Amino acid sequence: MSDYPSHLLEQAVEAFNSLPGIGRRTALRLALHMLRQSKDDVQRFADSISTFREEVKHCRVCHNISDNDLCDICSDPKRDTSTICVVQNVQDVMAIENTRQYKGLYHVLGGIISPMDGIGPSDLFIDSLVERVAGGEVKEVIMALSSTTDGETTRFFISRRLEPYNIVMTTIASGISVGEELEYTDELTLGRSIVNRVKI
Amino acid sequence: MSDYPSHLLEQAVEAFNSLPGIGRRTALRLALHMLRQSKDDVQRFADSISTFREEVKHCRVCHNISDNDLCDICSDPKRDTSTICVVQNVQDVMAIENTRQYKGLYHVLGGIISPMDGIGPSDLFIDSLVERVAGGEVKEVIMALSSTTDGETTRFFISRRLEPYNIVMTTIASGISVGEELEYTDELTLGRSIVNRVKI
Repeated sequence: MSDYPSHLLEQAVEAFNSLPGIGRRTALRLALHMLRQSKDDVQRFADSISTFREEVKHCRVCHNISDNDLCDICSDPKRDTSTICVVQNVQDVMAIENTRQYKGLYHVLGGIISPMDGIGPSDLFIDSLVERVAGGEVKEVIMALSSTTDGETTRFFISRRLEPYNIVMTTIASGISVGEELEYTDELTLGRSIVNRVKI
Repeated sequence: MSDYPSHLLEQAVEAFNSLPGIGRRTALRLALHMLRQSKDDVQRFADSISTFREEVKHCRVCHNISDNDLCDICSDPKRDTSTICVVQNVQDVMAIENTRQYKGLYHVLGGIISPMDGIGPSDLFIDSLVERVAGGEVKEVIMALSSTTDGETTRFFISRRLEPYNIVMTTIASGISVGEELEYTDELTLGRSIVNRVKI
């Protein structure tokens, strides 16, 4: 006899347990939570996840998640098409959009160069970025990548690929967080913030 | 424009966000995790949850979750049918089964009497417990309910209902946890452990 009183329960627990960060105990709690919802609600829950996986598209230009062939940002006539912000993933697009400080376009790499994880340049959407820049309309490419070794590697690789084109290449500033106390800032970040000091 | 680049993504995030203990940020991470799984795997994930909700049964005797009309425990000829352990929910059955210390049957109340939450005796499977005891085969009913006010109320109510029948009523012991230091035990628990001391 298995640890679960029902095979159907066991399968539901295993489904939730397969999600990242959800252990067996939480998975059991989630499965039993489903029994307290109406059958229709649970069907809607299951449908919205399988429909998302079946039907979601990626923008053919910037590779962001999209309901259409061209995403809402790439098809918005009010966005500045001369600037492309290069990011690792969809969450980064959402984080930058939430700042409401950026009016240009994006390019989602779909990951970051990481020799440790076996991810090379050919696994990322770098060729399509070069094509967009080669198109001639782009004046600036902003690298908004993590301040990690993998981020640095990716930034270096992309800037080499874009060198032949006459564009401005920038990277987002590193420095102390807004509201952060100097004494609690790690020394690498603090050092970077002094080197990249800004005129008042 | 919504905060999400895709309505399908938004719906998937809302689905995960509707689960207890899962916030919007985790929900987004889970939804995007789905994109890295194969369509078949995601379909299987969704199916196992909706099938569980559609098809799971409850045992007609003890109300535990079951694949059949009668659960594996109630239909096991090796279990002691003269003892019933009364518990709040399915997790409690699994917790007690995991101890491998109990060979009797169970009765799942489906909750606990809680005036604060508007849960009264008629919302729980108490009548069916009385019927089982009235059947005559039961010699002992063990109350394995939480050591809370609601637990006490439920225990009191059930013991009054079972008074007319000539059975032994017991409750699981409260006391200090195995491996716990005396000095860190709360005084109510420590007091209870002295009152209920056991002969060596």
